[in-house]
Amino acid sequence: MRVFFSPRQLAHAPASEFSRGEMIAFRECPVRAQSILAALAAAGFPAPSQPVDPGLAPVLAIHDGEYVEFLRTAWTRWRAGGATVAAYPTAWPVPGIGERRPDTVEGLLGWYIFDSGTPIVAETWDAVKAGADTAHAGALAVATGAHSAFALCRPPGHHAARALAGGYCYLNNAAIAAQTLRDQGAGRVAILDVDYHHGNGTQEIFYERGDVLFVSLHADPAFGYPYYTGYGDQSGRGAGEGTTLNLPLAAGTTEAEWLAALEHGLARLGEFAPDAVVVSLGVDTWAGDPLSHFKVSARAFPALGARLAGLGLPTLFVMEGGYATAELGKNVVGVLSGFEDA
Amino acid sequence: MRVFFSPRQLAHAPASEFSRGEMIAFRECPVRAQSILAALAAAGFPAPSQPVDPGLAPVLAIHDGEYVEFLRTAWTRWRAGGATVAAYPTAWPVPGIGERRPDTVEGLLGWYIFDSGTPIVAETWDAVKAGADTAHAGALAVATGAHSAFALCRPPGHHAARALAGGYCYLNNAAIAAQTLRDQGAGRVAILDVDYHHGNGTQEIFYERGDVLFVSLHADPAFGYPYYTGYGDQSGRGAGEGTTLNLPLAAGTTEAEWLAALEHGLARLGEFAPDAVVVSLGVDTWAGDPLSHFKVSARAFPALGARLAGLGLPTLFVMEGGYATAELGKNVVGVLSGFEDA
Ligand SMILES: [Zn+2]
Ligand SMILES: [Zn+2]
Repeated sequence: MRVFFSPRQLAHAPASEFSRGEMIAFRECPVRAQSILAALAAAGFPAPSQPVDPGLAPVLAIHDGEYVEFLRTAWTRWRAGGATVAAYPTAWPVPGIGERRPDTVEGLLGWYIFDSGTPIVAETWDAVKAGADTAHAGALAVATGAHSAFALCRPPGHHAARALAGGYCYLNNAAIAAQTLRDQGAGRVAILDVDYHHGNGTQEIFYERGDVLFVSLHADPAFGYPYYTGYGDQSGRGAGEGTTLNLPLAAGTTEAEWLAALEHGLARLGEFAPDAVVVSLGVDTWAGDPLSHFKVSARAFPALGARLAGLGLPTLFVMEGGYATAELGKNVVGVLSGFEDA
Repeated sequence: MRVFFSPRQLAHAPASEFSRGEMIAFRECPVRAQSILAALAAAGFPAPSQPVDPGLAPVLAIHDGEYVEFLRTAWTRWRAGGATVAAYPTAWPVPGIGERRPDTVEGLLGWYIFDSGTPIVAETWDAVKAGADTAHAGALAVATGAHSAFALCRPPGHHAARALAGGYCYLNNAAIAAQTLRDQGAGRVAILDVDYHHGNGTQEIFYERGDVLFVSLHADPAFGYPYYTGYGDQSGRGAGEGTTLNLPLAAGTTEAEWLAALEHGLARLGEFAPDAVVVSLGVDTWAGDPLSHFKVSARAFPALGARLAGLGLPTLFVMEGGYATAELGKNVVGVLSGFEDA
């Protein structure tokens, strides 16, 4: 399996996130990628390929141009205003009282970011662009004949919507990869999101499209972040009606229940008959993850990989969440080895 | 002029707000009210009357019942989840991706609060309810024959919408007062909001009502908080068409420009011919205020008071912002004395 990674992604390293009333250490840290790189090397995976810069076209095929321009320039504008710390939203718009997109960076931060865990620092744009390039490169490899590939993206992407950052995500790497596969000739692409959290950004991006299936297993928004989306009756709209499948799972979900939900999702994926699969690979489902309320053991990861290999489809894994940094690499490699060894 | 104040309001004292990427000392502090009380006493105003508790009816005449229940119970629910610090939103919903009101307190904090400067602590509900009672008592006094009254409300209220807290505001005291005046027989009520910031909550509450005029002079949302509303072409809707008048003012607005905008607003108020006036009295317009970008001197405050007295209408002043705590009392008393002495 080819592995893609850009070390430029490591430079995005905010010190803190504002979570539940406190400034805490930033959980989506560069060590995450290093844990995965070390485990890949230990398991004998090939050295990662660095992506070639494809310009902005793959990003702009998914994201709003003004949003991308905001991401690209926010830090400079923030600093020009005298700020010396990372940029976070202070206030944000709410529907129904005639809000409009403002011009100031302070206003734009609230316009384009939906939580206080997704700060912008000097290195953010370059890192997230490198992450999008990594996903694009992985998709190109699969589109041009590789049976599978792993795009080691970090920061993750699945919470990023067309014009929104949040949940540590700025650009939606999985969506960019899926679109690249489509542009390279795949008629139908399925995104299977196994991250612990609902991929609200991916859902939004493809909600009205019939050519990309979005299947997500995740913590029920009744109790879990990102709180407001991911319900089972959100199934798509218009041309996308029926091409979103949310499988929200309760706190305390067991491994057997999680694997059963996976089967449910894969059954839908089989009906869709995609030409290629993008896996939004979060391993924060793991029982030991600081964010998880599921009882999923490390054994589930090779099982997941093997099950996906059984589909017999060109498959791109795109890295999403997982915050138990010591075990993160092992769990990710568990999935990838399970796929390879099947 | 009768003065109303509940000392229960002083108990709301969060330590911090999360502003522009940093935890800073909470600017909307109890000392603000103490500064005003001291200046009132020094100027010979009568000792404040404490409001009688009118129950929840005046609050529920303006605010959504589920929102009020959230405010009432949020701290207890937050603590039950193990939190030991003040409650702030971590993430919030954005339009267009099928968001729904969640059940968890973490989700509700983002559902009902639009910034990270409006935390909930143990004492918040009792204090903000006492503030609403204070506004209600002031309105009752004016409705029953007092020519003028001052409701020393704190926390302020004008950023609070029907179902939203933000900008240090939880319950919209001015809106509750205006509704009380209506319920007591005033056919038409005008709210004149002279706070530095746009009263986005008050605008939302009365946007479709023709019986309450909302006139606001404030920092242009093109540069100033709350960023997303307060534009000059937002003039009301439906039955409220024409009963909102926003007068956004540029950074660097001079005292003469500010007084000219006041005249503009008062001309509209005169056309509306209200039976009573509620003044959302913020003095954060003052050039020395840490939040102000206007060049308004302390002389403007007695001039404002005298000009309002000249209207010859029953007038309730409801305290809003002002963050230069040492001079706050003097500036507020400047307005009230200017009114009395006119
Ligand atoms: Zn996750
Ligand atoms: Zn203000």
